[in-house]
Amino acid sequence: FEVHTQHGSSHTCCVVLNSTHSILLWKYFGEKIGLYFAWLGVYTQLLIPASIVGIIVFCYGVATVDSDVPSLEMCDERLNFTMCPLCDGACDFWQLSTACGTARASHLFDNPATVFFAIFMSLWAVLFLEHWKRRQISLSFSWDLTGIEEDEFGLTFSAVFGVIIYRITVSALMAMSPDPDTKSNVRVTVTATAVIINLVVILILDEIYGAVALWLTELEIPKTETHFEERLILKAFLLKFMNAYAPIFYVAFFKGRFAGRPGSYVYVFNHYRMEECAPGGCLIELCIQLSIIMLGKQLIQNNIFEIGIPKLKKLVRALKDKGTAEKEMEEERPPKQWNLDYALAPFDGLTPEYMEMIIQFGFVSLFVASFPLAPLFALLNNIIEIRLDAKKFVTELRRPVAVRAKDIGIWYNILSGMGKFSVIINAFVISFTSDFIPRLVYQYMFSQTGTMHGFIDHTLSYFNVSNFKPGTAPQNLEQGSITVCRYKDYREPPWSPDAYTFSKQYWCVLAARLAFVILFQNLVMFLSLIVAWGIPDVPKTIVEQFKREKKLLVDVFLREEKEKFQLIQSLFSKNASHQPSPHEEHPECSCFMCLRSFM
Amino acid sequence: FEVHTQHGSSHTCCVVLNSTHSILLWKYFGEKIGLYFAWLGVYTQLLIPASIVGIIVFCYGVATVDSDVPSLEMCDERLNFTMCPLCDGACDFWQLSTACGTARASHLFDNPATVFFAIFMSLWAVLFLEHWKRRQISLSFSWDLTGIEEDEFGLTFSAVFGVIIYRITVSALMAMSPDPDTKSNVRVTVTATAVIINLVVILILDEIYGAVALWLTELEIPKTETHFEERLILKAFLLKFMNAYAPIFYVAFFKGRFAGRPGSYVYVFNHYRMEECAPGGCLIELCIQLSIIMLGKQLIQNNIFEIGIPKLKKLVRALKDKGTAEKEMEEERPPKQWNLDYALAPFDGLTPEYMEMIIQFGFVSLFVASFPLAPLFALLNNIIEIRLDAKKFVTELRRPVAVRAKDIGIWYNILSGMGKFSVIINAFVISFTSDFIPRLVYQYMFSQTGTMHGFIDHTLSYFNVSNFKPGTAPQNLEQGSITVCRYKDYREPPWSPDAYTFSKQYWCVLAARLAFVILFQNLVMFLSLIVAWGIPDVPKTIVEQFKREKKLLVDVFLREEKEKFQLIQSLFSKNASHQPSPHEEHPECSCFMCLRSFM
Repeated sequence: FEVHTQHGSSHTCCVVLNSTHSILLWKYFGEKIGLYFAWLGVYTQLLIPASIVGIIVFCYGVATVDSDVPSLEMCDERLNFTMCPLCDGACDFWQLSTACGTARASHLFDNPATVFFAIFMSLWAVLFLEHWKRRQISLSFSWDLTGIEEDEFGLTFSAVFGVIIYRITVSALMAMSPDPDTKSNVRVTVTATAVIINLVVILILDEIYGAVALWLTELEIPKTETHFEERLILKAFLLKFMNAYAPIFYVAFFKGRFAGRPGSYVYVFNHYRMEECAPGGCLIELCIQLSIIMLGKQLIQNNIFEIGIPKLKKLVRALKDKGTAEKEMEEERPPKQWNLDYALAPFDGLTPEYMEMIIQFGFVSLFVASFPLAPLFALLNNIIEIRLDAKKFVTELRRPVAVRAKDIGIWYNILSGMGKFSVIINAFVISFTSDFIPRLVYQYMFSQTGTMHGFIDHTLSYFNVSNFKPGTAPQNLEQGSITVCRYKDYREPPWSPDAYTFSKQYWCVLAARLAFVILFQNLVMFLSLIVAWGIPDVPKTIVEQFKREKKLLVDVFLREEKEKFQLIQSLFSKNASHQPSPHEEHPECSCFMCLRSFM
Repeated sequence: FEVHTQHGSSHTCCVVLNSTHSILLWKYFGEKIGLYFAWLGVYTQLLIPASIVGIIVFCYGVATVDSDVPSLEMCDERLNFTMCPLCDGACDFWQLSTACGTARASHLFDNPATVFFAIFMSLWAVLFLEHWKRRQISLSFSWDLTGIEEDEFGLTFSAVFGVIIYRITVSALMAMSPDPDTKSNVRVTVTATAVIINLVVILILDEIYGAVALWLTELEIPKTETHFEERLILKAFLLKFMNAYAPIFYVAFFKGRFAGRPGSYVYVFNHYRMEECAPGGCLIELCIQLSIIMLGKQLIQNNIFEIGIPKLKKLVRALKDKGTAEKEMEEERPPKQWNLDYALAPFDGLTPEYMEMIIQFGFVSLFVASFPLAPLFALLNNIIEIRLDAKKFVTELRRPVAVRAKDIGIWYNILSGMGKFSVIINAFVISFTSDFIPRLVYQYMFSQTGTMHGFIDHTLSYFNVSNFKPGTAPQNLEQGSITVCRYKDYREPPWSPDAYTFSKQYWCVLAARLAFVILFQNLVMFLSLIVAWGIPDVPKTIVEQFKREKKLLVDVFLREEKEKFQLIQSLFSKNASHQPSPHEEHPECSCFMCLRSFM
């Protein structure tokens, strides 16, 4: 791209050239934008190992789906689990084997490898932050901007292909199930449609929240520009964070947990039963939610907000200026560079760019336990993002004023906070949203054979059809044909003295889930501490360079002092009558003393 | 004390005098020892608010002991709980009301205020570390050592009095119980005696472990002195930490948890039943353990190891040198200062001093939930410690070589690690060792009236006497008089289909305990983050002073350059034939460029 080198010429003397591109970028845009691209580069580079591990975990899920006992049991029609109806009146009893598709899809994301991956990703987040700290120190030392590699533009298509292939894979796996009942697929379709509507709302609210944060910050009247920016960023981040993650948190931790039980459902607004998750677990819904929001948000924001809208604005401006421009065109052609530059959109700051990446970092770290492919999608997006941003900055926007910056500022704190938050969220996703803990508990405490056989039967409670409240029983129920139905919960059977209360298994599984959260959180925190302590903040080479520079500085002063002394001596020897200089009056408080206190 | 000022004269020019004492201390001993005393000062100062809150929490316990329903129920003889025997064969059934004393004593430390205090102390630890960080930066800027205040020597006695008064209070509270059975008191006496033996073992092992750590570090052959010291400190710390806290961890988390149940006790070495805690809970034993180890360790280490042994060594040396000394004495009297100084013990480094304080910090932070008076005892000990250390350094030891140090080094990391560790330990002490969670669960889930009435009955399980294994039933059991006895556990009664397995209440309480750990840990971590972010590491005044100093430095250089320029000019004007100085060959790479890169 075309680069002018007026800027940045004041501090060129100490720069170590690593690549022509980074130098050009830094010279042209200044430190602040340079740091953003450096950060994006580091983040994208580190997404590569995360993606690879994520793909391996996903492949493990694909490879073991046919040997997974619980999903085999769910698909086994001979077991003949008659489930309680999913809605009042209109819905009929249904067979568990019809939910076979979602059960098999769940296994892709809900398997023991996911637990390992969640720990891996929590440590990855720590590693990323430590690595960036080092890089930032190197950059602030050498004013260098490395880490940005050239990539093909054609990758926009590969991301789109990625989505399509992913969707086809999931659909195929669903179709592979022996009894592809339409009902089960309808549920997935409905979820997906709902999520898409959700996504549109998120995108609209995102813009509104940006304005709200600005308005709130203006009310505060902060004293300095930096202060204003920090406050604005924090507010905007909190609002957009809530906006982007609220539906995901809902699916992960609340959906289906307060739905009640057959015969005593929880109703909202007196009419509507609380939502329940599919029998395959809430995890598959969380997956759909995550993949659609993540991909949708990225693709739409990349293509519409970052390319489409600026292009549209440019077009509008061009049309508006057409009348005046044509006159000028007649006067002087070719047009001057400043006229062409004025036609570009103004630069709005880096906040939207960082915000987008931070929200993406959240998808990669917060819910990675439920969606191991998140790092891969993030990587594909970022490879495109770097090129799109570069193109936008160079050809679509007016050249921004170069701003000096020591580091990425408040964004580092937000990233670090998210890294910490991700540990507890992943712990809760694994223990409460996935079926990992109930399976372990069944295998080691309740299973007669020590295997997973009978797990599905164990997770389903019994309900006596005669206990339906009036009007809630299925309307087309043939009297007497079905006496008990099953539902997914740990409750006492109808023949127990305290029927329908939480059973001992419920409390046992709950205790195991909570114990896992404690174990996971403390293990990851401990490993993170070791990683953070093991990686020194300042790289060794920089420490040595610092020392060398200090030595050089001292040498320069020594030489200067020596020269001055020689000058004075020669002056005295030649002009013996010369009066003493004012500096000689306090020789004991010389420059060296002060210098020493600096080292 | 007598102070020589030969040392430290090289960096006096920039010192801001805060108090005569601190300056003398720093001048006489150098930065490393100066920093130790500064750290000790900050720690001791911050112990004052912690002690005050601890006393208030303890007073709350004393004030509410008579209105506490569970301890009233335990002391109520009319409830007539017949407990299963505490040992096989020899022991008889016993009445719960005989354990009334320990129940009342438990309440002093196990009440809702303790939960608040545990959160408070976790935040206090964070606050202390942040405060010290600031102080350290101030010190390293100004080389100043503030924070040490004068205190009376008479306080050694007050600490001893503290113990006596504390013991009397506890004994009195035990005696106040309506039925002071000897058995219950015997148990306390036995515990106390055991702990004292334990303490002696700890003190002896402490010395052995110090030697082991030294030997292990020497095997490693570290490259530098600092590296050697850090490795040694880490090893010694880990060994001494295990030594000091292992018995406390045992009582807090393991004692009585693997004892089994009547009819199916766990035996070790085929004969001995695992230990059980007193019916008042393990917390009171933890209290006794903590207070004796903490006080004993401090008093013995202060008085014997820090004063007695050096005095003894001095005496031995004096006796050994008597022959030669007497001859010299005859030759020259009064004796020269260097002879007197040589007779003093050599300085062994600060590691033992820091180690003692760090272990104390552990008592104050790790188990504060079970012993709110720990900060008070630590405070009393430190007030004495500062004076004893000062006396020892000035009069008992040879004057140490002044060593420069930027900070307290690895000790800060150890403190910070302990602070983090204390959060999870306190969470576990409150939820697993104290009765706080079972009480809450009872009140909100099982109590018929919503009050604590019936709690004791609820925590005791039933055991059918006929289920005793042959030879384990009490020998003097009159046939038929007692058919069921009670024991403290949540298990199914004998008439249940699955008798003696863990009941639903057990799992419910366990889940609540674990949930509390998660809640407590994350709440405290969140608050700690806010505290750490809220307190800037570098105080504002120091930031301003730094800026001013940089400006001064630039001014000095500007003046120097100007003077040199004037000198050259005058030289040229007077000696026009003078040859150019070598420095003028590269004027563009002057000192200013390099300086700018520094700022």
